[in-house]
Amino acid sequence: MKGLWLENRQLFFKNIPPAPQYDEALIQIRLAGICATDLELMQGYYPFTGVLGHEFVGEVVESSEDAWLGKRVVGEINVTCGECEQCRNGRETHCERRSVLGIVNRNGVFAKYTSLPLKNLHIVPDSVSDEAAVFTEPLAAALEIQQQVQIRPVDRVLVVGAGRLGQLIAQTLALTGCNLQVLARHDIQKKMLADRKIATIEESAIQAGRWDVVVEATGAPAGFAVARKAVRPRGIMVMKSTYKGDITLNMSSLVVDEITVIGSRCGPFDPALRLLESGEIDPTVLIQAEFPLKQGIVAMNEASKAGMMKVLLKP
Amino acid sequence: MKGLWLENRQLFFKNIPPAPQYDEALIQIRLAGICATDLELMQGYYPFTGVLGHEFVGEVVESSEDAWLGKRVVGEINVTCGECEQCRNGRETHCERRSVLGIVNRNGVFAKYTSLPLKNLHIVPDSVSDEAAVFTEPLAAALEIQQQVQIRPVDRVLVVGAGRLGQLIAQTLALTGCNLQVLARHDIQKKMLADRKIATIEESAIQAGRWDVVVEATGAPAGFAVARKAVRPRGIMVMKSTYKGDITLNMSSLVVDEITVIGSRCGPFDPALRLLESGEIDPTVLIQAEFPLKQGIVAMNEASKAGMMKVLLKP
Repeated sequence: MKGLWLENRQLFFKNIPPAPQYDEALIQIRLAGICATDLELMQGYYPFTGVLGHEFVGEVVESSEDAWLGKRVVGEINVTCGECEQCRNGRETHCERRSVLGIVNRNGVFAKYTSLPLKNLHIVPDSVSDEAAVFTEPLAAALEIQQQVQIRPVDRVLVVGAGRLGQLIAQTLALTGCNLQVLARHDIQKKMLADRKIATIEESAIQAGRWDVVVEATGAPAGFAVARKAVRPRGIMVMKSTYKGDITLNMSSLVVDEITVIGSRCGPFDPALRLLESGEIDPTVLIQAEFPLKQGIVAMNEASKAGMMKVLLKP
Repeated sequence: MKGLWLENRQLFFKNIPPAPQYDEALIQIRLAGICATDLELMQGYYPFTGVLGHEFVGEVVESSEDAWLGKRVVGEINVTCGECEQCRNGRETHCERRSVLGIVNRNGVFAKYTSLPLKNLHIVPDSVSDEAAVFTEPLAAALEIQQQVQIRPVDRVLVVGAGRLGQLIAQTLALTGCNLQVLARHDIQKKMLADRKIATIEESAIQAGRWDVVVEATGAPAGFAVARKAVRPRGIMVMKSTYKGDITLNMSSLVVDEITVIGSRCGPFDPALRLLESGEIDPTVLIQAEFPLKQGIVAMNEASKAGMMKVLLKP
């Protein structure tokens, strides 16, 4: 099969065998999504070589357990050892020997097939469409915020950034009843939020030190300063962006204001699937384009345009 | 009276009237302590002009309430409005209109007298000596860590830095029964810890990603990198140092490892006094020198020497 291959920041199609590793299921991709991390990997955020892509919904076509054959599934992206200190302490997504689908030492999903251990797979409820299920992984990442931080109904919460992930974060946080505002840059982002009755705010209207919780989801270093300004003393900044390079900040001011900065990455799949099944979250509004896999390079270019929301790939 | 005055990073004695503000008590200083923040203020960490010093024990000599006269007291350093959003939400130390004793818009304690509102004062138990009571403020700052972070008895905790504040932090954390290690640079620091059966560790022995909680108390920017290396995925870094200038860090790695970074400043006085009264904490081992106030400039120079522990001033 041909996979959309990243090597030395170059993207091209490469012929690879669709061979699952021992004990892993072979999954035929039904639909895949392009994520900011895919774009950051192209910029050299992490030196990955292999088939790109980690957001998918697919069908199990080979498995050591017959019961899985034909099942429509999504998959957790961290493949873990189960034996290291992190795994033994319930921090499997931080496994010290992990590979990560399409990100670290493991071919991803921008291909006809991918493979994952059965323990990584979750069956998609029948009522959840492929177009919704393909968002399970980023929706889980949005929910990781509430795994880490208690969002109280009276909290003032600001989401800085309303792109692909920011929209999902906003949808999940709105369900708490909190006093939510979202800093969106592009008209299409503002419209998506308005359609769900989620309040937006302009950067010029952000007063210093007024939000209990600020989520930084711009995907860029500049988001930090905006979030830092907005958070109140003893408030919480949740950092969701990964990008290449360092940032400079005044640590003493974080000490004086007793700010909590918390990094947030992959989240739990089961609650994400429950919210898709119940319809409380509708990620499909984010879909702006769908390309056949063979046009994957064009699709990646599309996805990298400012303000572009979700671009899907269909093998 | 003469106060040890800081202005444009210059330190000199200046004649000032010992006049309490309306509604404040006049306190005769019995003993004062030199803190790293005093030294940082001289380096321009914050542009303070006035009498330096905020660690003290004293006696109330003028007060609107007679019951306070003659009482031996320590005093919280943040003088607050009681009306702003922070005060109304129980975050008085973050008052938006606060002055801070010897740090922000308020003359400090390196003088014969200082003044504070009665609400800032705490009576020192008779059994607590002046030499112990003068540490109430930094001991409270050490206890702020446990106001913010739950230290569990099984936690592996690393304190980076074993200076004035680091020693008090180590003493308080040791009381939790946690698995505590302290990175100390100077022999005198190591001896003080050994005397209390607190384990030390060399920087070369610090493995990456092994501590649940790391407290950065070096007082310098370089402490961050050591603490960052030591903390495990989903671990907590407590930042206690304030210094002039910015630091550079890799925020994406904090996101990937889901690290929590939490700034920590002033803490609660009552528990500090309880631990001094019970004798569970003995800060007096830190005292290395006591100077008469008139030798305050010499004393500040002494306190700034590498590895120097607590230097006291007696008016």
